[in-house]
Amino acid sequence: MPASQRQVSFARRPIGTPTEDCFTLATVPVGRPGPGQVLVRNDVLSVDPYIRMRMEEKDSYAPVMRIGDVLVGRTVGQVVESHADGFVEGQWVVGRLGWQDYSVASPAELQLVDVSAAPATAYLGALGSTGITAWVGLHAFGKPKAGETVLVSAASGAVGSVVGQLARLHGCRAVGIAGGAAKCELVRSAYGFDDCIDYRAPDFAEALRRALPQGVDVYFDNVGGPILDAVLPLCNNFARIPLCGLVSQYNATEPYGMKNLREVFNRRVTIRGFVLSDHKDLWPQASAALAGAYAAGRLQYRETITEGLENAPRAFIDMLAGANVGKQLVRLRPAA
Amino acid sequence: MPASQRQVSFARRPIGTPTEDCFTLATVPVGRPGPGQVLVRNDVLSVDPYIRMRMEEKDSYAPVMRIGDVLVGRTVGQVVESHADGFVEGQWVVGRLGWQDYSVASPAELQLVDVSAAPATAYLGALGSTGITAWVGLHAFGKPKAGETVLVSAASGAVGSVVGQLARLHGCRAVGIAGGAAKCELVRSAYGFDDCIDYRAPDFAEALRRALPQGVDVYFDNVGGPILDAVLPLCNNFARIPLCGLVSQYNATEPYGMKNLREVFNRRVTIRGFVLSDHKDLWPQASAALAGAYAAGRLQYRETITEGLENAPRAFIDMLAGANVGKQLVRLRPAA
Repeated sequence: MPASQRQVSFARRPIGTPTEDCFTLATVPVGRPGPGQVLVRNDVLSVDPYIRMRMEEKDSYAPVMRIGDVLVGRTVGQVVESHADGFVEGQWVVGRLGWQDYSVASPAELQLVDVSAAPATAYLGALGSTGITAWVGLHAFGKPKAGETVLVSAASGAVGSVVGQLARLHGCRAVGIAGGAAKCELVRSAYGFDDCIDYRAPDFAEALRRALPQGVDVYFDNVGGPILDAVLPLCNNFARIPLCGLVSQYNATEPYGMKNLREVFNRRVTIRGFVLSDHKDLWPQASAALAGAYAAGRLQYRETITEGLENAPRAFIDMLAGANVGKQLVRLRPAA
Repeated sequence: MPASQRQVSFARRPIGTPTEDCFTLATVPVGRPGPGQVLVRNDVLSVDPYIRMRMEEKDSYAPVMRIGDVLVGRTVGQVVESHADGFVEGQWVVGRLGWQDYSVASPAELQLVDVSAAPATAYLGALGSTGITAWVGLHAFGKPKAGETVLVSAASGAVGSVVGQLARLHGCRAVGIAGGAAKCELVRSAYGFDDCIDYRAPDFAEALRRALPQGVDVYFDNVGGPILDAVLPLCNNFARIPLCGLVSQYNATEPYGMKNLREVFNRRVTIRGFVLSDHKDLWPQASAALAGAYAAGRLQYRETITEGLENAPRAFIDMLAGANVGKQLVRLRPAA
């Protein structure tokens, strides 16, 4: 067990797009687990768009990060020392343990994961909170019926790609929106969406309309902003819009002005913001559904793995600009 | 029975605020009821904001009016000739019979009303579809719990005034938003709201915040636009926003750009557009609740009655600018 570890903490609030000087990499002592605690060696870190919101001074659904805090983030790793019942050395666990090599944690913060059923990293993505977010937003709030059309923004992303696959498993037509021809091709070929439209293409609005001959019944929105505005007029009566995130707005210093809110009234649409942590009661059901789909070979995922904790800030910044394919991860220590 | 009657039809689509030349007043023959039909002499006409939406070429929840159509509108009147089972001369009925002195109607279009329990005009307002709109939006979609705060825009208006009274009957704190000190005073004194804020006052945002020390749990919105934008940051987590209308936007040639939609995500708000005609199943329950509150002396309403069908276009135009107090009605024939 080394005496010291690396840790990334929050140095400065960003204005607009974060820059590397918003982060500080430091070497600090490895914590010592007390009675009832375990020490975890973090193997892989998940960097996610919601972290950008936590960097704001206000306006987030969760407590803001204070300057000096260790960056929040989920990790998968192994127990290296346990003083807690039910945990033994070598077990694989997932938790929100932060951007650091080692973490002291309580059992309530940890979930044991089965690395014989799927790779450890899958539990940070399609089989973890990412997949559960997709399941809860789609099924609990989107409430699709077989035969309906489910549209998803950021469709090549970690959440969006799962939404489309779950929609198809449910008997729906799945249409994605993604940035660039390569991502759209991935959405269609790897994830099996019925169609995917490039929002950067000059004929986006027309192409979207063509891809939705039956209109939109569920729009699973990860981005907000102008794309949500473009989708509203394509909604069918009584459409449901689970609002999972607003990634198009996180770096915006001036929020986009939504023009088409009148369609929410005209088409009797329901827009519902949701945050996964409010719905812990649904996790077991979602988790089981995702594991079942994966075991049956019907849940595909992709990962972009950046090597080294020191590169985590760059990976995070690039992800906000859409540089990743699938789940953006950072491997903290070299693969064994 | 006269051979001819007056009728107002749709002459021209407005751009922005409607003008009187959007309407044509003509003298036409009184229709003859066929077998199974009744002839109704319309006594009082209701002019409502939703009509402005029906004047658009598109973008409404209902079929648009065509040029030459009789203006849509609900009336209360008396059966003067019946060839339909269950209807006899002299009965009072409400129906969407249009801007005209007489209408031929089928039983399915008519509701009998009890003018011994309340004045006939009440069935165009607090005891009719207006009150039912308030009840359905508040209870079916707002789902307030006793002790919560219900905020209502256009609070001195026909729907808004009922919403606040129903909220208080349900054990909620009711706060209104209205235009001008006189309307705010009416909302507090006549309708008994706990508070009412003048959106035209220079300190509106600050006054609204002060009036909502516990935040907003239900925002019953009739206006959309900048007021909705101002309310979103005051919402509590899991707030519900039944969107009943967008009167601030009906005359707008350029829609307002909503900046604060991110709060829908941050605060896990549900915005739900609704239109009364989708919810006929709830009418009996709502109607009974409203009649009970009225009989108990706990449902107040106000009316602005304009005399003469020829003045209906002006009354409609002025109502869109907020000139009315309570329900805007037009008496088609002189009071007996």
